[in-house]
Amino acid sequence: MALRFFSLIFFLFCSNSWAELIHFLPGQHKNVSFNQYSGYIVTDARHGRALFYYFVEADSNTDELKPLTLWLNGGPGCSSLGFGAFMEHGPFQPGEDGTLIKNEYSWNLESNMLYVESPIGVGFSYSNTSKNYLWNDTQTAQDNLMFILNWLEEFPQYKESDFFLAGESYAGHYIPQLAALLVEHNKKPNIEPVNLKAIALGNPLLDLDISVLAGDFLWSHGAISDETLFLEKTVCNDSKYLREYVHDKWSEGCNDVFNRVEDEVGVDVGLDDLLLPTCLSSSYAEQLKLKGKLGKIHSAVAKRAKKGDPCLEGRILTYLNRREVQKALHVSTTHHPSHWAFCEGPLVYQEDNLDMNLIPLVSDLIKEAIPVLLYNGDQDAKIPLTQTRIIANNIAKDLKLVPLTEYGTWYDNKQVGGWTKSFGATEDRKNYATYLTFATVRGAAHEVPFTSHSQALTLFHSFVNGIPLPRAPQN
Amino acid sequence: MALRFFSLIFFLFCSNSWAELIHFLPGQHKNVSFNQYSGYIVTDARHGRALFYYFVEADSNTDELKPLTLWLNGGPGCSSLGFGAFMEHGPFQPGEDGTLIKNEYSWNLESNMLYVESPIGVGFSYSNTSKNYLWNDTQTAQDNLMFILNWLEEFPQYKESDFFLAGESYAGHYIPQLAALLVEHNKKPNIEPVNLKAIALGNPLLDLDISVLAGDFLWSHGAISDETLFLEKTVCNDSKYLREYVHDKWSEGCNDVFNRVEDEVGVDVGLDDLLLPTCLSSSYAEQLKLKGKLGKIHSAVAKRAKKGDPCLEGRILTYLNRREVQKALHVSTTHHPSHWAFCEGPLVYQEDNLDMNLIPLVSDLIKEAIPVLLYNGDQDAKIPLTQTRIIANNIAKDLKLVPLTEYGTWYDNKQVGGWTKSFGATEDRKNYATYLTFATVRGAAHEVPFTSHSQALTLFHSFVNGIPLPRAPQN
Repeated sequence: MALRFFSLIFFLFCSNSWAELIHFLPGQHKNVSFNQYSGYIVTDARHGRALFYYFVEADSNTDELKPLTLWLNGGPGCSSLGFGAFMEHGPFQPGEDGTLIKNEYSWNLESNMLYVESPIGVGFSYSNTSKNYLWNDTQTAQDNLMFILNWLEEFPQYKESDFFLAGESYAGHYIPQLAALLVEHNKKPNIEPVNLKAIALGNPLLDLDISVLAGDFLWSHGAISDETLFLEKTVCNDSKYLREYVHDKWSEGCNDVFNRVEDEVGVDVGLDDLLLPTCLSSSYAEQLKLKGKLGKIHSAVAKRAKKGDPCLEGRILTYLNRREVQKALHVSTTHHPSHWAFCEGPLVYQEDNLDMNLIPLVSDLIKEAIPVLLYNGDQDAKIPLTQTRIIANNIAKDLKLVPLTEYGTWYDNKQVGGWTKSFGATEDRKNYATYLTFATVRGAAHEVPFTSHSQALTLFHSFVNGIPLPRAPQN
Repeated sequence: MALRFFSLIFFLFCSNSWAELIHFLPGQHKNVSFNQYSGYIVTDARHGRALFYYFVEADSNTDELKPLTLWLNGGPGCSSLGFGAFMEHGPFQPGEDGTLIKNEYSWNLESNMLYVESPIGVGFSYSNTSKNYLWNDTQTAQDNLMFILNWLEEFPQYKESDFFLAGESYAGHYIPQLAALLVEHNKKPNIEPVNLKAIALGNPLLDLDISVLAGDFLWSHGAISDETLFLEKTVCNDSKYLREYVHDKWSEGCNDVFNRVEDEVGVDVGLDDLLLPTCLSSSYAEQLKLKGKLGKIHSAVAKRAKKGDPCLEGRILTYLNRREVQKALHVSTTHHPSHWAFCEGPLVYQEDNLDMNLIPLVSDLIKEAIPVLLYNGDQDAKIPLTQTRIIANNIAKDLKLVPLTEYGTWYDNKQVGGWTKSFGATEDRKNYATYLTFATVRGAAHEVPFTSHSQALTLFHSFVNGIPLPRAPQN
């Protein structure tokens, strides 16, 4: 006990971490019923390394204890604040006039949400030592573990909470590795275990040999021609192409095929979402100018864009770069350059880590009885649903998991949210808990909640409550 | 000349055709700047066979002469009035309060539009002889030719107009066969030729061996599992299944596979459009009841449904069955039962006609210098875009057509409308006019203009003007 007391004193004196209540976010309306915090957690005091977080308390009018979920975006190098919190499932999104619009499908309706700018060099996170911007998967996982342990010291009331890890895209690398460290940590003697309950991976990069193969997907969505699909099948596929990229060994064959893919897909179609329109206005000023025919077109597009507003990203960039917003968020002006970006920080990531196969680690987590949710927006050509589904099936087969449900539709209220299949533990274990769930989200982008708020919340509700997705319309 | 005069007299006395101006459609607003007509054209006076048409004059404030386009829906047995005119590209659509909403992307902005309920037994068309409801492709084409020739006698001012044929789905059978008869007719001596300029086929059934193969499409859209795709590839595909259906020879293998497909796709997902929500209200009364949470859900769905309102079909059914609407449309109360349906008329179609391969006929039309547009909504699993594209490529290869553009995006104003490729005449002919265009429509259903009014109008504009689709954003 005395030792713990001294450790705490030591920690308080040697770190620059601080837990800070956000009093008011610029543009936020006044009657917000939950608290928000943001600031830095020092993960390495010696090098002055600090990860920025934005913490949103659960929005609940019951006494029921809500769990704690840590969210990470991918990249590597992209911001969980910009994507996860402000574009996807946080409580607010910047509107056209700069005010914050309440997201009625915010994930804090289900859980306390902890958004972390990770690793060092992403978003508002920083290091005092420039060499710390050379980073890789192993260091990321270790730093994230350190973040969790230190954050729980700042917010000890969550130490006993059910704890969930969730993320998307390259977080298919981050989350399983972090989960593995947590499982290991929990096995140590004389520690307070972190109650890791499950992990969720959205459109995740898990294995370069499978996850990124997009030829069939692009072909069947009309984005590449029969001839180009043939070249992808015979000359160079996405895995080969990306492997050449990460190992800096370019072949002419691959370059030719993928120049062709790029030409056919076109500059105005994003691989993130084959159906998303482009934003026709880059600033409010320009937008206000759109009168007459052009204004009419823009308005028609804005209507079509109900499934993902293509101009939201620009508004978030503007919002998070407003000085008063950064002040309200307790962004360090000493350690951090004032300009915030979605993905373009000083981080230099060890690129060949992209080539790691995370499937064995995900399997190991399932063996440790950690349930895994793999979900996938069905309009994403970066990590197509077909590939994540192949991985889910392979894992189930390798681990001899028992199918718990047939492949079929799941429901978000009264509409089909997508397709799903789930698997339980093997018969040997005499335990049919759901250990692996695969779910697609119908009409959704690479960033699922961006286009599909309501479906994403239903998915998240099932995830944190450990219950199956609804397989029939809800009354 | 005398002969023609007597023919005309004969025609007038022996037919029940009449050209009737629609004075006012119930719910229509008052300042409509174009005329609408509807009524019957007798195609066989002896059997009392009459096809119902709805004719919408071009909405144009220029003196420029607009062409004439005849539109046919598919089935076989579905209504061009319900689908084509009121759901897709006519000037009006029934709103929630029963009034007619102006369609700002109506195809009559580009052409005089002639919607025909064909063949006999469809929609408001009728026969006095019940045996006439046994019908097939050959008879359909002949009756449609008779319709055109007789209609032009009623509306002689269009005899010299540029004439286009367009339709979708099973009209992939109707239109090429009708076009072939027109080409033949035009070669006869001493006749007034019909100025057929080009044909357009949307999501067309052209060849059962190719058009309907949906396994890869459903798989890559998440709607069927890896295992079921495997079964489609090894046990029974859509072509085999439909061929068994049309020849009444059922195999257990095919039944098993397609029961499985049906289970996986799910009852609330339409093969017409994998992304379309279901309509949550079957009547206005029910809709008005939707308060509280349910009302909120419905409102969210209505917003999502900007690309296709799933409740529109129900409103059209109600509208076209209103007595005063049928009266305004000059529907025969003597010959036609008062109930109008989208597809469920007394027609009994020779089902093995589904198995006919129309590709050679389409090729023949191209050889006759009739340009062909094959377009396809990219969310349709009935006739997937991938299959229509294969057919377009096969035709181009067989006819040795020269590619005029690379496969790539086309634009509807400032947004990507879909992907396209076009082909011209062979080098031998020293003529590089566009003879074959393939185009997908991004986000569109089996009925393209239903979900994608603006894109469809751009496509139609290019079609009737014989100009390439825009390959860059428009200023």
